[in-house]
Amino acid sequence: MKVVTDISEMAALSVERRRRGWTIGFVPTMGYLHKGHLSLVRLARERARWIVASVFVNPTQFGPGEDYDQYPRDRERDRALLEAEGCDVMFFPSAEAMYPHGFSTTVSVGDLAEKLCGRSRPGHFDGVATVVLELLNIVRPDLAVFGEKDAQQLAVIRRMVSDLNTGVEIVGGPTVRESDGIAASSRNAYLSPEERKQATCLVHALEKAQDLVRSGETRAESVVEAMRRVIESEPLARIDYVSVVDPESLEDLEVLPREALAALAVRVGDTRLIDNVRLVPGE
Amino acid sequence: MKVVTDISEMAALSVERRRRGWTIGFVPTMGYLHKGHLSLVRLARERARWIVASVFVNPTQFGPGEDYDQYPRDRERDRALLEAEGCDVMFFPSAEAMYPHGFSTTVSVGDLAEKLCGRSRPGHFDGVATVVLELLNIVRPDLAVFGEKDAQQLAVIRRMVSDLNTGVEIVGGPTVRESDGIAASSRNAYLSPEERKQATCLVHALEKAQDLVRSGETRAESVVEAMRRVIESEPLARIDYVSVVDPESLEDLEVLPREALAALAVRVGDTRLIDNVRLVPGE
Repeated sequence: MKVVTDISEMAALSVERRRRGWTIGFVPTMGYLHKGHLSLVRLARERARWIVASVFVNPTQFGPGEDYDQYPRDRERDRALLEAEGCDVMFFPSAEAMYPHGFSTTVSVGDLAEKLCGRSRPGHFDGVATVVLELLNIVRPDLAVFGEKDAQQLAVIRRMVSDLNTGVEIVGGPTVRESDGIAASSRNAYLSPEERKQATCLVHALEKAQDLVRSGETRAESVVEAMRRVIESEPLARIDYVSVVDPESLEDLEVLPREALAALAVRVGDTRLIDNVRLVPGE
Repeated sequence: MKVVTDISEMAALSVERRRRGWTIGFVPTMGYLHKGHLSLVRLARERARWIVASVFVNPTQFGPGEDYDQYPRDRERDRALLEAEGCDVMFFPSAEAMYPHGFSTTVSVGDLAEKLCGRSRPGHFDGVATVVLELLNIVRPDLAVFGEKDAQQLAVIRRMVSDLNTGVEIVGGPTVRESDGIAASSRNAYLSPEERKQATCLVHALEKAQDLVRSGETRAESVVEAMRRVIESEPLARIDYVSVVDPESLEDLEVLPREALAALAVRVGDTRLIDNVRLVPGE
C-alpha cells in the first residue's frame, strides 16, 4: 500500500489508474480507524478495482470549543489497518495543502445542514461538504463509501453530489456495533469505563423505538418520548436531540406511515455521541 | 454541431471524447452571443480538440428585480453563430434539469464575492460559482474560457476551481470592444441610441485611468476621482462603483506600485453595465 501526502501526486495516480480502465473506490475518514471504517473499505473493495482511503482530520468541520486538537490520531496504526484490509492508497494530506493561504470557498447544502446535529454544530456540515468535494475532486473515484452511522452526513453528501452532478456514486455502509451494542466510533476512545456503560443508552433507546414501531406505534411523538425516557434513566447522559425524521429530507415526522430515521445525539460526560436506526413500519 | 439539452447525454459525450484522448475546451455563456463570446470559442479552439459551449440563462445569479425575465434569448441565432465558429456541441440545459426539485447546494467564495458587483448584487456570485461548478462537473473539460470583461466573475471562478481542486484550467479571454469602444455585452441590446452614446463614458473613464497611470499617477484615489468625473459628465449615467483594486484579491488599493485593475459598474438609463482594464505602472 502506498502512502501519499501530496495532492498532485494523488490526483495523478488516480488519472493513471483510470486510464487503465480501473474503477476507483474511495473511503474518506478522519483516521483513528475502527472496525466501522474497515467495513467501509471492504465494501469499497467489493465494488471497485482500486481503493483509496483518506485520513484527514478536517479542521473546518470542528466548531470553536470542539475536540479538533484532542481528536485521536495514529497514522502508523491507521496505515497498518488499511494495508491489512487490502487498501491500495492511504491519502494523508496536510491541512496546509487542503486549505492553502487564501482558501475561501464553502459548499453549503441548505436546510439539510441546519437540522439535527446542525443545530448544535453550526457550520459543521459546510465543513464536511467542502472537504468531501475537494477530496472527491482530487481522487476522482467512481464510488465513495460513507458510514450510515453518520446519517445526516450521508444525506448531506448525497444531496451535494447529486446537485452538483459530480457523477460519483455514494454508497452507505451499515453501522458496525461493538459487543455491547454501541456504534463503533473514534470518539468512543474518550469514554471512561462508567461512561461507556451508560453510553449503551443510545442503542437501547433506538431498540426501544424499533420495538414500539414493530408493535404498531405510529405516532412519532410517542416514539421520541420513549427514547428520551431510556436516555434520561442514565445520570451521565444529556440529550442533545432525539428525533424521528424523514431519511432524505431529515424533516421531523408526526406519523410513521413509511420508513423513518430515529436519530439521536447524546453527551455522555464530555463526549458527544450520535447513533441512528431505520424504523420500518410493518417490519 | 450537436445541440444537447440532456445533462446525462452531455456527460456521456464528454466521457466518450475523453476516452479517445481528446482534450475538451468549454465556454459557458448565457447566450444571446456577441463577438466577445465568439472570441472565447476561438480561444478554446486554439487550445483544445473538442469544444463545448453552454447556453444557459442561470436564474440563481439574478437578484429580485433584476432582468432574468427580459434577458435576451435567441437559441437559433446562438446555434448558428456557434456552428459557424466551429464549436462541436452547444449544451442547452433547462433550468428544471439544472435545479431539480429539492436542489439546495450553494458554492460561495467568501470575501471575493462581497466586493465590487457583490455589493449591489448580493448572492450573484454564489449563483455564478454554483452553476459553473455544476457545468464543469457535467462537461468535465480540460480548460474553460471566461471573458476578462467580467473580471470579478473570473477571479471568483479561479478561486473556486483552485480551492476545490477541480483540475480544470481557467483561461481568461481579452475583452472585445465595439467600434465605439464599448465592451461587447448582451445587455448592450437594452440601450437606446442616446444611452448607447452616453455609455461610452465607461471606456472613456478607463482610458483616462490608463492615461493618468502612464503619466506617473500612483495614488488610486486620484485615478478613481478622475474616472468618476468622466462618468458624471453624462446625464444618463449613474455610478454603482468605480474602483482601483488588486486583480486577484479585489481589495481596494491606495497606491499603484504594481499591476492593478480599474473596474466600474454604471447604470445608463435602466441598464447596468460593467467594464474594466488593467493598469500597469511604467507601461
